[in-house]
Amino acid sequence: MKNTAVLLIHCADQKGIINAVTDFLYKNDGNIIDLDQHVDQESNRFFMRVEWDLSDFKIPKPKIYEFFDTLVGERFEMQWDLNFTEHKPRMAIFVSKMSHCLYDILQRYQSKEWEVEIPLIISNHPNLAYIAERFEIPYHVFSINKENKAEQERLEIELLRKHQIDFVVLARYMQIISPDFIKEFPNKIINIHHSFLPAFPGAKPYHQAYQRGVKIIGATSHYVTDELDAGPIIAQDIARITHNDTIKDLVRKGRDLEKTVLSQAIWNQLHYNILAYNNRTIVF
Amino acid sequence: MKNTAVLLIHCADQKGIINAVTDFLYKNDGNIIDLDQHVDQESNRFFMRVEWDLSDFKIPKPKIYEFFDTLVGERFEMQWDLNFTEHKPRMAIFVSKMSHCLYDILQRYQSKEWEVEIPLIISNHPNLAYIAERFEIPYHVFSINKENKAEQERLEIELLRKHQIDFVVLARYMQIISPDFIKEFPNKIINIHHSFLPAFPGAKPYHQAYQRGVKIIGATSHYVTDELDAGPIIAQDIARITHNDTIKDLVRKGRDLEKTVLSQAIWNQLHYNILAYNNRTIVF
Amino acid sequence: MKNTAVLLIHCADQKGIINAVTDFLYKNDGNIIDLDQHVDQESNRFFMRVEWDLSDFKIPKPKIYEFFDTLVGERFEMQWDLNFTEHKPRMAIFVSKMSHCLYDILQRYQSKEWEVEIPLIISNHPNLAYIAERFEIPYHVFSINKENKAEQERLEIELLRKHQIDFVVLARYMQIISPDFIKEFPNKIINIHHSFLPAFPGAKPYHQAYQRGVKIIGATSHYVTDELDAGPIIAQDIARITHNDTIKDLVRKGRDLEKTVLSQAIWNQLHYNILAYNNRTIVF
Amino acid sequence: MKNTAVLLIHCADQKGIINAVTDFLYKNDGNIIDLDQHVDQESNRFFMRVEWDLSDFKIPKPKIYEFFDTLVGERFEMQWDLNFTEHKPRMAIFVSKMSHCLYDILQRYQSKEWEVEIPLIISNHPNLAYIAERFEIPYHVFSINKENKAEQERLEIELLRKHQIDFVVLARYMQIISPDFIKEFPNKIINIHHSFLPAFPGAKPYHQAYQRGVKIIGATSHYVTDELDAGPIIAQDIARITHNDTIKDLVRKGRDLEKTVLSQAIWNQLHYNILAYNNRTIVF
Repeated sequence: MKNTAVLLIHCADQKGIINAVTDFLYKNDGNIIDLDQHVDQESNRFFMRVEWDLSDFKIPKPKIYEFFDTLVGERFEMQWDLNFTEHKPRMAIFVSKMSHCLYDILQRYQSKEWEVEIPLIISNHPNLAYIAERFEIPYHVFSINKENKAEQERLEIELLRKHQIDFVVLARYMQIISPDFIKEFPNKIINIHHSFLPAFPGAKPYHQAYQRGVKIIGATSHYVTDELDAGPIIAQDIARITHNDTIKDLVRKGRDLEKTVLSQAIWNQLHYNILAYNNRTIVF
Repeated sequence: MKNTAVLLIHCADQKGIINAVTDFLYKNDGNIIDLDQHVDQESNRFFMRVEWDLSDFKIPKPKIYEFFDTLVGERFEMQWDLNFTEHKPRMAIFVSKMSHCLYDILQRYQSKEWEVEIPLIISNHPNLAYIAERFEIPYHVFSINKENKAEQERLEIELLRKHQIDFVVLARYMQIISPDFIKEFPNKIINIHHSFLPAFPGAKPYHQAYQRGVKIIGATSHYVTDELDAGPIIAQDIARITHNDTIKDLVRKGRDLEKTVLSQAIWNQLHYNILAYNNRTIVF
Repeated sequence: MKNTAVLLIHCADQKGIINAVTDFLYKNDGNIIDLDQHVDQESNRFFMRVEWDLSDFKIPKPKIYEFFDTLVGERFEMQWDLNFTEHKPRMAIFVSKMSHCLYDILQRYQSKEWEVEIPLIISNHPNLAYIAERFEIPYHVFSINKENKAEQERLEIELLRKHQIDFVVLARYMQIISPDFIKEFPNKIINIHHSFLPAFPGAKPYHQAYQRGVKIIGATSHYVTDELDAGPIIAQDIARITHNDTIKDLVRKGRDLEKTVLSQAIWNQLHYNILAYNNRTIVF
Repeated sequence: MKNTAVLLIHCADQKGIINAVTDFLYKNDGNIIDLDQHVDQESNRFFMRVEWDLSDFKIPKPKIYEFFDTLVGERFEMQWDLNFTEHKPRMAIFVSKMSHCLYDILQRYQSKEWEVEIPLIISNHPNLAYIAERFEIPYHVFSINKENKAEQERLEIELLRKHQIDFVVLARYMQIISPDFIKEFPNKIINIHHSFLPAFPGAKPYHQAYQRGVKIIGATSHYVTDELDAGPIIAQDIARITHNDTIKDLVRKGRDLEKTVLSQAIWNQLHYNILAYNNRTIVF
């Protein structure tokens, strides 16, 4: 088990940022495991991810936040986030009726591909409860309609808070999340959409793809924002198709993309590799 | 040099089509080199491409059209097209200022990768005349503005007719072709668009792609129709990008896609592999 | 549920084959659903797959074999195989300790992505019995060592015969199958190897890939033959890697390839799309 | 035109390296444009590329080498290399008879895609002289046979030295370079091999690929070392093929891969993005 800290930073680009951060770490005996930075020339914004070993680090964990803020963060007017790998991220899964992403996630979870806790699964349908049962994860059904949506989402948020959920994964959850819900988890709700966005947003993208006669289909994982299927893109992948592929074939081939692309996003979320800014992501 | 004939057929799906066609060929000593068929379940439409050796074929070339129509075509109410590989297709290239697709095409032409004649290059700018000169291909400049567009296109059509051009390739030609021009070459004008359509049609797709923060860029070759960037798609390909790629990088990486995807379309056009129907293509 | 027949044919290339086959079908009121053919120029061999609707077919199912052989097969000295889609193929899965391919297969099975029966799972280890139990599929352990290998394989073959198994899938089964076993299931045992063969056959391909410093890893599904990892290739796929990927990352990324590539092979096997000849496959 | 310096560093991994380097830059008013690092866990080796703006840098260009070595390099026992982007790299191209890679390179050169000088082209055949002429680049023929090889290579080296060539590109040069030549340009000779190495090294890889029945072909650019096709891999790419592709099709499709993969390697070479160590590359 790793005992490291991960800093995700962004601020206006300026001289000396990397030096200041590495100075802070070096002088306190923090051994850098990984450092990556990026400057967006368009917005003149600096982005950085640095991970260091805490074994010999002189500043005690609870004090790192304060020290870094005072010595580095404020000086460069940084926006930053600090995480410790000793904490196992807590992830909630939302599903509807399709099982492929759910099974794929739970297999990775059970085989320890990921360091993650999955305290609960939430659904608007009871259909997949049997799978949750097999993996011994509590399965909560919140059936949603126009009338009860606000109230049901309130209860969901409460449940997520109670379980100290760090982020939410919509594993082919066929319900639009309302802005009030999203506000509670900014850049913490990951969706998988079954097209290479921005092509074919909204309903039935495989049907749209078939009608348009594309030769390539795709899948896109992204953070959920108020605008449907328009949030910051985390990962995308594609598959080649031909005129021989029916809509049913597209759906079938697309499922494999959905599984892989959603898992890539979760992997990066679990490793604090993602910074979202201006509706784009930096994936270190 | 091959001496074969290629039939491209489509009609309402019904029993006995393949049998009738192969009967026609077999009884006249036509040896089938390649046969491929496709049924579109949505539209209940049958599509077929068959190529056969003419060496021992009993029906003389000038009579094949009439015989096939009488014996097979009319019976199944087919729409069909007949081509002979002894005829070298005659292709015109339209360019503006960018040289990458043009060089790529001319290198293939010169090294005999393709069996094709290129009797002329047309451009709205004089910039690439020196390349045409190197390959000893006549280069005609038709500068276009709002006022002279109709007249200039009329002259272009005349020139294309005079050279018995079979099809036109827009190799990053930065001018919209008007409907009157398109009508003269239905499904005979191939364009390369620098995005994975239907994402990012129109101007500056790489800038659009950058702004949207996609993780994949693409290129699309398609037949030109009246609606901009909305014609039947022939080929598509993609390249993966990251946050490190600037717009300039997208443009650079995209050029490689454009070359390859345009060449795939030309290759299939030259081999009579493409059937367009209902704004989609069957690429045999 | 489809009620069709599928013919897979190969023979020396000659005039009239397609015509003879489609004649046989048309004259007996068989409506062709799909027909694809291929001629290998190197070996002058003709290959064909044709599927037709049996609803109005005049020859009763049990007689088709005899009629086709007499009227067509013998005339062209064909090697051919006839299958009916009404029969649900019976597939056995062999596993060892890794669960990713097994879960992936069983999810597809349970969600009816595939028309298949899985009467049993065989393993050389008890580790994955709990998964079989969840899906209510009998799990048989045959522990294998040098001394008991011949005898254990004999018992496995007996069990497979008893369950009328059509084909066997090695879902990361870490035991070499002996020639006597393979002889019982010629081109009926599908393996997944975790490299883009012929690169990195044998043990620890991801370690080999890392040492060689490749920028792309792959997975290959193939029929098992006597020579290790050298049988006819059915499907391959790849993933791009960088210097940042450790061996552990390769193993993790490779698992996604293994799942997809193995499933592609199974899909094609279930639809009688594959013909193996001269250690190569035609995948229609 | 950029006025930056690029440092490529590797040394045993240890605390404080990044801090020491960024300290050196920051204290002398060097603004970091890009910094990337990598630690190879297997060999416990640290790798780094850092590029900084020289406009305000206090240490004069001719002194940077000495200062860095004294203040940083020696302390960490680094192996390192310093380059300035003001210097346009000088590249020699070696060709034989195939024109596709040569045209592709020269088109990029002429359209200013790359900042590079190409003072000469060397060949063992006169065939492509006409292309060199079109681009007004001197073309030198050194015909090679067993007897004259050592002497001819000696003359080639002399010519390369005379033109102060920084690195050599073998653009489908069909001659094995001898160890004496390679010694003169360690990790400075880039080859393109037409397979996804390590599969199909040596002669006729497309024929080998066809025989093996692979479903994917590839191309690999790598530094030339004494062992044939076994040097550090810089870039690889692949294309999917089917049973329909003849050897001729593989050769044709492969050419597109060769062009792209070779150009990727050249691009990275021109930007000092590549570090080779232990027969592997880090491509920043």
